[in-house]
Amino acid sequence: MARWRPDARERLERAALELFVEQGFAGTTVPQIAARAGLTTRTFFRHFADKREVLFAGEEELPPLVAQLWADTPADLEPMAAIEHGLTTVAGTGFEDSVDYLRTRRSVVLADDSLRERELRKREILSNAIHDGFVGRGVGEPTAALAAGVAVTVLDVALGRWLDGQDGRTLVEHVREAVGALGELLGA
Amino acid sequence: MARWRPDARERLERAALELFVEQGFAGTTVPQIAARAGLTTRTFFRHFADKREVLFAGEEELPPLVAQLWADTPADLEPMAAIEHGLTTVAGTGFEDSVDYLRTRRSVVLADDSLRERELRKREILSNAIHDGFVGRGVGEPTAALAAGVAVTVLDVALGRWLDGQDGRTLVEHVREAVGALGELLGA
Repeated sequence: MARWRPDARERLERAALELFVEQGFAGTTVPQIAARAGLTTRTFFRHFADKREVLFAGEEELPPLVAQLWADTPADLEPMAAIEHGLTTVAGTGFEDSVDYLRTRRSVVLADDSLRERELRKREILSNAIHDGFVGRGVGEPTAALAAGVAVTVLDVALGRWLDGQDGRTLVEHVREAVGALGELLGA
Repeated sequence: MARWRPDARERLERAALELFVEQGFAGTTVPQIAARAGLTTRTFFRHFADKREVLFAGEEELPPLVAQLWADTPADLEPMAAIEHGLTTVAGTGFEDSVDYLRTRRSVVLADDSLRERELRKREILSNAIHDGFVGRGVGEPTAALAAGVAVTVLDVALGRWLDGQDGRTLVEHVREAVGALGELLGA
């Protein structure tokens, strides 16, 4: 049986992450990443603009993913219920299989200022897509902007606790806990 | 009577902002900024690490400012009341005098990806300082992290609406409106 062989893009992603862990993000070059993946520098640049973007591959899929989530969310849900519906749906799809990759990626991102900033922009892209959904449902301002900020905060806190956690709780459980804590915070 | 003469740091800030508006952030160099301010490039680098940092001057004062705000916030306030107390206190101090500068700065930041990212990091520094305050008051997780995210969201939305606004409402009024809308969002 033929062994499964990841494609060039995935090999570059793995090689980059390995090297970032071994020698730091700043100390790693594109030729090193390509060599580790057994590919040419030219092939690297066919897939990624620079070494930073390797860690943000697939980001362009976020807005259509969020739009699909909105399409699947019952129209009569109040904003907070819609947030919980969307976040638990996302959290239930595939995150658990990627926990090791996501933990390693997170440690790399947290260790470098430029990567932290880039990660925050990714979060903003997500926030904007969520905001568009609220506006599309006729939610006015400032509620739509606040709801989008709250949604991203909940996801961020839940993801952080899930990745830190040793207790085996799933991301869905962390999302539910965060939504509950938020309700208490504002109900107090 | 002697005309008031701003110091080198402030002259560099003004010159940089003018040039960023006139010719874009990417198209402006440090020597141009220094020349516009009537100073040397060497003087520029005594005050700022690079042209980007000119727009983020004083950021290091954020954590002690937030710590002072926490010290001035009654200990018995619930988290949301503490957030409203802190944000309305800040919003009441000096923002109205800087509205033109802040509007111009914002248009420059929004026009450049690297500045947007840097601005998000500034927001994270603020969020971390607020988070420290909640932890210091014995607020547990995930509530402290959620409350910090909510506080920054409220400030961000209120600032955006205040800077966009043509209605003459103050930043304090926008903060109060955002806190009210958030309460409805979560109470619904």
